[in-house]
Amino acid sequence: MSITSQLEPVPSFDYVIFGATGDLTMRKLLPALCRRFAEGQIPADAQIIGTARSPLDDAAYRERGLKALREYVREDEFVDATVERFLGLVHYVSLNGADAEGNWAGLSARLDAAGSERVRVFYLATAPDLYGAIAQNINEKGLRTEQSRIVLEKPIGTDLATARMVNEGVGRHFPENSIYRIDHYLGKEAVQNVIALRFANPMLERLWDRESIEYVQITAAETVGLEGRGGYYDGSGALRDMIQNHLLQVLTVVAMERPSSLDADALRDEKVRVLTSLKPLDRNNLAANVARGQYVRGTTRGQAVPAYREELPDEAPSNTETFVALKAEIDNPRWQGVPFYLRSGKRMPEKLTEIVIQFRAGEPGLFGAARPGSRLVIRVQPNESVILPLFVKQPGSTFGLDEVDALSKLGEPGRIRFRDSYEGLMLDAVKGSPALFVRKDETEAAWAWVTPILQGWSEAANGPDAYAAGTWGPDSARELLARAGHQWVEDAAA
Amino acid sequence: MSITSQLEPVPSFDYVIFGATGDLTMRKLLPALCRRFAEGQIPADAQIIGTARSPLDDAAYRERGLKALREYVREDEFVDATVERFLGLVHYVSLNGADAEGNWAGLSARLDAAGSERVRVFYLATAPDLYGAIAQNINEKGLRTEQSRIVLEKPIGTDLATARMVNEGVGRHFPENSIYRIDHYLGKEAVQNVIALRFANPMLERLWDRESIEYVQITAAETVGLEGRGGYYDGSGALRDMIQNHLLQVLTVVAMERPSSLDADALRDEKVRVLTSLKPLDRNNLAANVARGQYVRGTTRGQAVPAYREELPDEAPSNTETFVALKAEIDNPRWQGVPFYLRSGKRMPEKLTEIVIQFRAGEPGLFGAARPGSRLVIRVQPNESVILPLFVKQPGSTFGLDEVDALSKLGEPGRIRFRDSYEGLMLDAVKGSPALFVRKDETEAAWAWVTPILQGWSEAANGPDAYAAGTWGPDSARELLARAGHQWVEDAAA
Repeated sequence: MSITSQLEPVPSFDYVIFGATGDLTMRKLLPALCRRFAEGQIPADAQIIGTARSPLDDAAYRERGLKALREYVREDEFVDATVERFLGLVHYVSLNGADAEGNWAGLSARLDAAGSERVRVFYLATAPDLYGAIAQNINEKGLRTEQSRIVLEKPIGTDLATARMVNEGVGRHFPENSIYRIDHYLGKEAVQNVIALRFANPMLERLWDRESIEYVQITAAETVGLEGRGGYYDGSGALRDMIQNHLLQVLTVVAMERPSSLDADALRDEKVRVLTSLKPLDRNNLAANVARGQYVRGTTRGQAVPAYREELPDEAPSNTETFVALKAEIDNPRWQGVPFYLRSGKRMPEKLTEIVIQFRAGEPGLFGAARPGSRLVIRVQPNESVILPLFVKQPGSTFGLDEVDALSKLGEPGRIRFRDSYEGLMLDAVKGSPALFVRKDETEAAWAWVTPILQGWSEAANGPDAYAAGTWGPDSARELLARAGHQWVEDAAA
Repeated sequence: MSITSQLEPVPSFDYVIFGATGDLTMRKLLPALCRRFAEGQIPADAQIIGTARSPLDDAAYRERGLKALREYVREDEFVDATVERFLGLVHYVSLNGADAEGNWAGLSARLDAAGSERVRVFYLATAPDLYGAIAQNINEKGLRTEQSRIVLEKPIGTDLATARMVNEGVGRHFPENSIYRIDHYLGKEAVQNVIALRFANPMLERLWDRESIEYVQITAAETVGLEGRGGYYDGSGALRDMIQNHLLQVLTVVAMERPSSLDADALRDEKVRVLTSLKPLDRNNLAANVARGQYVRGTTRGQAVPAYREELPDEAPSNTETFVALKAEIDNPRWQGVPFYLRSGKRMPEKLTEIVIQFRAGEPGLFGAARPGSRLVIRVQPNESVILPLFVKQPGSTFGLDEVDALSKLGEPGRIRFRDSYEGLMLDAVKGSPALFVRKDETEAAWAWVTPILQGWSEAANGPDAYAAGTWGPDSARELLARAGHQWVEDAAA
């Protein structure tokens, strides 16, 4: 009955990171590989090859890597000797991947030294508009071997048309089954647990439909504001940055039909079916189903913080939404009439990602007042856990009730270290296990649903509703649920 | 989310116990009242009046009471001053309740002193064949007031005919709504919790039928042998002593339809419907559905113990069953085809009372080998608790599973003292709350189902199967389940 962490060693490999001096590589990719190495999952002859335009040598790049690891690997996990051995696997090739005239010979030499038999992963952590060119160069310079995969970071485009361009650009040079679109939410244990909970527990499986479930809430809330990402973020907004990818991916996992197997394509076939079954939201029904907000000055954790516009580089007026709440509906027999409320925002009161499955209330009357239905809460962060409250009899009373947690804390502090979501996913790419990556048709189906919302907004007379920083978004987000007699979880708790 | 114990004070009362010098009074009834007094639920002007044939005065009876309390109230709950005050409420009248010429004047005087307005409970803890005569005397001597109830201990008869005699004998002098047939299993928190779990949690309510439940096991196992009760027990046996009352009561609570309210009659109407829907077991189908056993020499907790026959006063040959296992089926749409396995025995390896709800397994294949269905275990003793295991994802694995307890321990040691089942029930009789007592038609329906089994046995060529003391009964009990591809829980765990 205990939870153990599982280690599946992988064969040796070469991991080429494009955008190796960037923020993502430093904060997430190197720390993830370092932790996997520390746990013994990465062979000692693997190569991690960073590439970027900066003219660095191995030693200088390792220096940068060491600095990043000191900052982003937890202190109690940072062991000098291990990190040093890890950095011994790290190399650097100064190369502009989008430039056919770049130093491909240098990269080629390093890869050839290891041989063409072992797995090569090309991880693209650059601007997405370069993905096509980089893929082309990898292919045309002869670096793409039989055992090669290419990992694409988000965003895959900014709407359906540009997403198709990215997919086609890369697809001309890599077969789809070697293209790994990463969505780190799929790397989170709690999200994967939705699949285990639903399909390994017949009890829960039977309850997983409109007859038992009243609604679903999926929230990803951040406390931070722009954090200097103003330039990128202002051209994106919460809908593109969080909903199109992460929250829709979570929604597919919650809503999909039972797949015929857990094979990557069986799983993703079902996820696509959810996305293509979403009822369209567009200019005709946006007002009733979508709330967007932008934070103004407020207070976060007792500190006065500026408005979104004040955080922009030029403090320019902006209609970019820093908050979205929407009501999605899935047009199939299982989910007919069950709202899926998605919500994501910056400058919220808490950093919180969770999935709430609200079961319907029973018939009223037997125990006095009507009881609310139970709620299965799958918390993704801060502490990965699953919470299922049950009503039991209050001892000593005739038929009084108490509420208790039928709770399986999956992330009890100190019990087990949960890997960062990049750790699992980066090695899944090595293993050739694409189940937790996003397939072309998934990305495009998600964009096909999101794009009309963006279009509707662009035509709207009004911009986003203001909300004070440190609150759960504008009133319109509450009204969205109130119209159906529902409440956001934290409103209900208050 | 915490469990609290609830105290509902009662108005003052007179509690008259017939059989006041007997084992049950000393072991259960006085300690139960004393604990309720210690917790402040019993008013200081209540009277507890013991009656029996022995010529004792108040002081001598209190002396006996004190001795019993010292033995049966837990040491940490025994407070001298409180017990002394409690014994101040205790009186004794030397009276043979079955004798119309007995000292009724003495009892009458004591009751009249307190007045006829307050609640009177007449608790009959004597031989059941005296119940009619005692009821008649209480009534004809004018002791039965408007606010009187009569509590009847088991056994109500030894078969359907004698049960009817007892019911009719008492029913001539007390209206049915003032007759409280006690079954202390209904006083157990865990048994009452079945009602709360089922009907306060729509999630569980929806699962409570043949579609989700494969079978139910209800076990009441004792480690002890005869304990000097040889005379009584050999005339009774496990079927009469445990199944007809306690286990069938538990079965009704597990199986009943949702009552229209928790009022006593609404609840008991549904329980009767279960009993009258039991498929008959009789001479024609006993072999396939009932196993009976009698223990022979064996080992309990490392100690060699004698055979049942050796424990009988005269070591006479006996066909009395010390173990019964049977497969009950309920002929209604909810439970069609779902076996309810009931089992009770002496000299088992553990003292254990529990209800196991075995949910059906899901479709195999998604997670490798077929998963067994979950089991909801409601443990009545030794530790009242509710256990519901769920499968979750094994962290770090691709789709490995771990089993965890989604567990609400209702009886975690030290968290709350669970009352002895007599405590609640004895005061329910004062409050006039008969929901957890057995109605006439319930008793008779249970006997109507049990009696043909007894008849079948009496005609059978073979007696009970032998089983070694300290084991879970004869092979025939395992074969009973094996024929349906099922196993007793402890066999499955072994």
